[in-house]
Order: sequence, then structure tokens, then C-alpha cells
Amino acid sequence: METISELARQLEAGETTALALATACMERILDPAGEGARAFTMIDPDRSFAQARLSDEARARGEALPPLAGIPLSVKALFDIEGKVTHAGSRVLAKAPPARSDATSVARLRAAGAVVMGHTNMTEFAYSGLGMNPHYGTPGNPADRSRIPGGSTSGGAVSVADGMAAGALGTDTGGSCRIPAAFCGMTGFKPTARRIPAQGTFPLSVTLDSIGSVARSVECVALLDAVLAGEPVPAPEATDLAGLTFAVLENYVTDGIDAEVAAAYEAALATLTAAGAHLVPLHLPDLGRLPELNARGGIVAAEALAVHRDMLDSLGALYDPRVASRILKGETQMPGELAALLAERQAMITRADAATAPFAAVLMPTVPITAPRIADLDADEALYGKINLLCLRNPTVANLLDRCAISLPLPVDGLPVGLSLMGETLQDRVLLAVARGVEKALARA
Amino acid sequence: METISELARQLEAGETTALALATACMERILDPAGEGARAFTMIDPDRSFAQARLSDEARARGEALPPLAGIPLSVKALFDIEGKVTHAGSRVLAKAPPARSDATSVARLRAAGAVVMGHTNMTEFAYSGLGMNPHYGTPGNPADRSRIPGGSTSGGAVSVADGMAAGALGTDTGGSCRIPAAFCGMTGFKPTARRIPAQGTFPLSVTLDSIGSVARSVECVALLDAVLAGEPVPAPEATDLAGLTFAVLENYVTDGIDAEVAAAYEAALATLTAAGAHLVPLHLPDLGRLPELNARGGIVAAEALAVHRDMLDSLGALYDPRVASRILKGETQMPGELAALLAERQAMITRADAATAPFAAVLMPTVPITAPRIADLDADEALYGKINLLCLRNPTVANLLDRCAISLPLPVDGLPVGLSLMGETLQDRVLLAVARGVEKALARA
Repeated sequence: METISELARQLEAGETTALALATACMERILDPAGEGARAFTMIDPDRSFAQARLSDEARARGEALPPLAGIPLSVKALFDIEGKVTHAGSRVLAKAPPARSDATSVARLRAAGAVVMGHTNMTEFAYSGLGMNPHYGTPGNPADRSRIPGGSTSGGAVSVADGMAAGALGTDTGGSCRIPAAFCGMTGFKPTARRIPAQGTFPLSVTLDSIGSVARSVECVALLDAVLAGEPVPAPEATDLAGLTFAVLENYVTDGIDAEVAAAYEAALATLTAAGAHLVPLHLPDLGRLPELNARGGIVAAEALAVHRDMLDSLGALYDPRVASRILKGETQMPGELAALLAERQAMITRADAATAPFAAVLMPTVPITAPRIADLDADEALYGKINLLCLRNPTVANLLDRCAISLPLPVDGLPVGLSLMGETLQDRVLLAVARGVEKALARA
Repeated sequence: METISELARQLEAGETTALALATACMERILDPAGEGARAFTMIDPDRSFAQARLSDEARARGEALPPLAGIPLSVKALFDIEGKVTHAGSRVLAKAPPARSDATSVARLRAAGAVVMGHTNMTEFAYSGLGMNPHYGTPGNPADRSRIPGGSTSGGAVSVADGMAAGALGTDTGGSCRIPAAFCGMTGFKPTARRIPAQGTFPLSVTLDSIGSVARSVECVALLDAVLAGEPVPAPEATDLAGLTFAVLENYVTDGIDAEVAAAYEAALATLTAAGAHLVPLHLPDLGRLPELNARGGIVAAEALAVHRDMLDSLGALYDPRVASRILKGETQMPGELAALLAERQAMITRADAATAPFAAVLMPTVPITAPRIADLDADEALYGKINLLCLRNPTVANLLDRCAISLPLPVDGLPVGLSLMGETLQDRVLLAVARGVEKALARA
């Protein structure tokens, strides 16, 4: 499936219709040879087609159309969709009452004309970066179906890569849009958390949750982000890289990097230099303290425990044990630990702001490895835990520092590799403009 | 002293100079019969005058000037000012090293041309709504010097009311801009917390702290807010009230209201109706649970304890005991209490968003009483505690619900009374436009 702007052009030119796009997406979702059954946990074809028909009728009447008119999108299963159950990838919420109204983000996408294709699969309660789900299955990676798609927005990334939607609404608490984008060769954006209202979204960590997207280009995620933030579309134009200075984060994020990722990452840095950008090494010594600060699950476990405490007590057996054990780490925290972590975070933000202010963006590999095999992780609990933390490690930096960040696919022959750009707090449009410039340079390389 | 826009006009017309304004402010600050010695804890006349002269010289050269060129402002003593100590109203930090650079907010005001008159007095560490300070004195209320100014931005509100500055930079964690504005007959604005970066600000509660201002009109605080947020000036125009619907919050915020406040508040509601606005009663039942949820100090005590833990252990005797005891309430919280409070807050935000979305703003009295006497509060610890919680009660609603809010002075013969308007999250400019409309209607009444 093409980018959102290309689809919009085809719709405008009469080369396709919203109904044709929705039908093509639905056929791919329903194809028994495809990943639809694992990528989506809810579809409602009648409603999707009805929305598409309304869009086509408005277009036929010559009405002024909103920016996403007729564009098919998928929605992670932790966003409220009116009349549907928000199970967040769990069994424990599968019999909850249906949502009475759309989440604010879903409502904004619909108001902008998007056609909702359904709820996508996810790590239970969004609490892992791998995208494996014991209840609804694990969608296979589009580059190699035996490998994980990354998570937690696993179904969202696969829905886009496999042409079941032109973009995926997701959340990102520690990389949940950027990790699956990197593993699936897509573009994943995490805005500054406060940019998009969380109303109608099942929380993981109320402090760190961000509402982002996965799509096929920077322009796609920028369009979605503008609509989600209630800001003017179109997306910002590409910034010329000549003369820009990027920081290359040299500590913490390259530990344990595999050869494939390192080669693609180094090549990308060379591409940026060739495009006229300056690269300056950056060290953020605070990051070295994160493993110790997060030893008892950190802010996420503490906040997730507060959300899940009662449900875990009464229905804990229904949880994915890998998720329940992570949430329950919050129980091992010391009195005052969350408050101390929040204060420590604020101090780190202050120091990082001073360190990164001079740069157009901070560069790092999105994930230091390519997508591992599902069977390997399923067979070895310790490996699952270790790889999960490794996948979350780099993306979490942007959540911790209250930043925006984007993962772009790098030109590779083998498994997909992502390059991350981290921007300044609330400078989301600036970051997106710079990312368009980087995307252009990578395409030319 | 006139409003910021009137001063800007006079500067533009050559009727005054930045140096003349700064000199007039400094004379009032230094007047031994005035409140300057208690309103300010740091002045640096040479630097203020040098800034003013630079502004006048740029004007004389015909340069394009930034929006606050030559406007004298005061800065609460918890914001970093390069080369000065950020003591936050405490003795314990009075010998800390001087700040190496301006806080982001101070830097933005300076970049917009403002002349900084000095650091203003405050409740120690901003942790009370009354504005009493045992270390640096309590600035007397401009309407009656035997009464409290309100806090924690006590010196800021008095600096504006007494013509020592045209506007005051403050913070607001539970009313610290709006309470002193209400008690001193000024306008006080608390933006949505995430709107203004907190870099270089000594924290009270990293979750609830908001960077706001006190000044002489809605236009003044809107101008300051635009500069602080890095948004385009000028301030939004007044919204016409005819046909607007306001919610009048009827539970929680009117308990214990005194006769003077009730009369002024009722008259204001009648004025809005006469201006063509519709008033609809609103109940937010969640608010009734706040005293119980905050029984052990709530989010603020938990987060403040994390900041102060080490200093309290080593230097606790130097603290205002009224402040130390509030911070130490955080020690009585149960494991997981902060996380539960943050999750509960998120749920309340979701419910309140649905309840208030239809309205132009939510109305309430800023504080249910007029400013009490300093001597009465000094003589009675229990009364101090009770009145403090009563003053903080209403303004805290906006911090809890992650909203923006503004307090406007009502036309009264006796002690000042404030009317509060609470807006939607991040709809700060919308709220300011509506508040300009309300201010106009009140002026005509």
C-alpha cells in the first residue's frame, strides 16, 4: 500500500475510492494465508465500509474534505472505539463492557476522515517491546514470519507493512511505536507525551505514555500527528541537511550492537555527512545509571501496578505471566521510590536539555539488534527477559527525557534496521521536518 | 503602574523610557515605607538599569524591538537568574552556589526584552497558599497591610500591585499564582503545566508545577504567557460572551464561602448573564473525594519529599516548620500510594474532560474567603493549617485536572475577591480569549 499522501492524491484524482481502499485492506486482513488473524483482534467490515462509502459520497458531492478523507487506518487495541471492547491485548478485559465513545485520538482521526479498519494486536497491556501475545497470537515479522514484529504495537506495524492499513495508531511508553517500526522496516513516531490527549486510552504508565503512529514515511506519521494534536495539516517540509549539526549518542545505546545494525547505522551516518550535515559525538553519562534506577521496574512498574493492583489480585491467573511478573516488580519498590524516580527524571531532563539544545537531533540505533526468532524467545524465559530489555533500552531514553523521537527504516539487504532521531521536548514539528530531510538523504544514498 | 500594553504604547510613543520605568519601580522597591524589603529578596539595580538602557538604546537606533522591550518584571525566587542564588524562599539554600544560567522561562522573558527587577519573596519552597515567610518576612496585602498577600507567589503579586513591576513571573502547583492575585486584586494565570518548560525552576511537585504569572489584566498575563510558551504575540482578542455557555461548579468549591465573596461572586455571575452568557450548574462528584485522597499530603507531599529528603535529614532545623511538616507528611504514605494517586488523577481527568467539554469555561470563586490577618494566623497553628487548606482547595482543582485557569479581580468595595475560570487542557489561548471577554463585561458592570 502506498503512502497516505499518495493515496490522498489517487482519491482526489478519482483513480481509486475509499471503498476500494478499505476493501483491499479488508481482503488482506481476511486472507487466511496472511497475518490478519494475528495482526487484528477486532474487525467490523460493515462499519469500515459504511465509513468509506460516506467519504466517497461526500467527495462525489464536491464537498471540502478533511485531510485524511478515505484513508484506511488501524487502531491499537488499547484505544476506545465506540461500541467495542478495549481489551488491550489481555484476556482479563476481554469481557469488559464496550466503550461508550471513541478515544479522543480516534475521534480526531475519524473527524479528519480516516476509515478505521479495526483493533490491532499488541503485547498484553503494552508491557513489552517484543510484541508476543499468548492470547491472540504473535503476528509474524513481514521480513521473516518466524521472527517477532516488535512491540508493543505489533499488529499496528504489521498492518501497515502488509497493506492492511495505510497507518497505525499506537502508543509508545518505552519504544512501542518505534521498535516494531524498526523491526518491520516502517517509520514509527513517538511525540512528546503531552502533545496528544490520552482520554480513552488504557494506561501503562500515566507519566510516560505517548500516543504515536507507525506508517510508511515521515510525511505519513507527520500528517497523522498533526491531526492527533489538533494542529494544521500539512506536514512540515523537509529541512535541508547541509550545515545542520547532529549529535551522535556514543554511550549506552551502542552497547551490544550486532554487526548488521552497526553496518547499517555507520552507513547512515556516512550518508548524513555526505549530505552536508555535521556529526558531533555526545555522551549522556546519566544514562549509565538507568539499569540501577530501573532495577525494581522503575516508573513504569510503579504506575502500572497502581492500575492493575485490584485486577491482579482477583484475576491474576488470566494475565500473560511475562507481563504480570513485570508489573509485580512494582511491589518490590521502596517507600518513596516512585517520587524519587520522578524527581531524578526531572533532574536528568534538565541536564539533557542543556546537552542537546545545540543539535538538530540526537542520533542512535533504534534497537541494537535485528528481530529475533519467535521460537527462540518462547523457549527461553531468561532470553526473553534479556532481549526485551535490550529492545526497550534505546527508545526508552526519549520517554525518560520527555522528548519526541522517530525511527526511520535504513536501506538494507537483510532484516530491517531502524535509525532513531530524538528531538527536543514539544519541538515535534521541528523533528519531523529534520526527519524528512534525513529520509530524503537516505533515499538518495 | 499601568498594564504592559499601555507601557509598551508609552515607550513606543516616547512618553517614557525603559530606564524611567525601571527607576520608578526600583524607587518603590527601595522606599522604606513600602513593602519592597519584604516583596523582594534580591535586587541588582545596576543590572536592571543596564538592561533598561540597552533597550532604550536599541529603540533610539530604530531597531525592531521584541514584544516586552523595556517592560519591568519581577521573578519568583525559585527561578534561576544567572549569577544569583535560587533560594526558593528558604534559609537552607541561601548559601547555595549562584545559578550558572537563567531558567528557560527567565531567558525567554529577557529575550523578549523584559527588564528583570529582581527575585521576589515566596512561601518557603512554594509549599503554602498563604504567603507567610519566617525568614524574609511576609509582604503586607496592598488592600490592608495587616493581612496576608496570599501565596506562594506572595512577593510577585505585591510587586505588581505596588508598582514595583508590571508583571510577576511565578509558579502555581495548587494556586500559587491565582491565590495571591485574588487576595491582592490582580489577575493570576496558571497555564496547562506542560505548556512552559520547567528547566531552571526549583520543583515542588514535578507533576503539578506550572509556570504562570500575576499582572494587571488578562492581556498582560496573556502576553507573558505567549512569550513563555514561545508562541506568537499578541494576546488573543476578547471573545464575545453572547451565546457562550459557562459551567458554574456547584459542589466542593462553595463550601465555607464567606458573605463578601459570595456577594461578589453572585454579582459576577449576574453580570455574565446580563452580557448574554448562559450559565449551567455543574457537579464534579470526584472532587468530594479529594480530602480523603490527600489525607497524607497527596501527590505534592510525595513528590516534594523526594526532592527534600536528603536536605531535611541534614538541615531540617533550618526549614520553616510549617513547610517541613507538610513535606514530611509524604513519609506517612503507604507503599504504592503515589502511583495510585497518579492513576486516580488520570481517571478523574478523563471523567472531568467529558463533563466540561461543552463549556466555554468552568466558573468558581478563586478562594472562598478574603485575605485573613497575618497576626491571627501567626498566633494559631491549627487555624494556619485550616485556612491554608481552604485557600488551596479551589485552585488545586485545575492542577489536579491538568487544566489552565485564571483568576480575575471582581469589582468590590472591600477586600479583593477573585473569580476563577478553568479551561480545557492545553486550550490556554482559548481560555485567555474568553477571560478577556469576561474582564470586559466586569468592567462595564
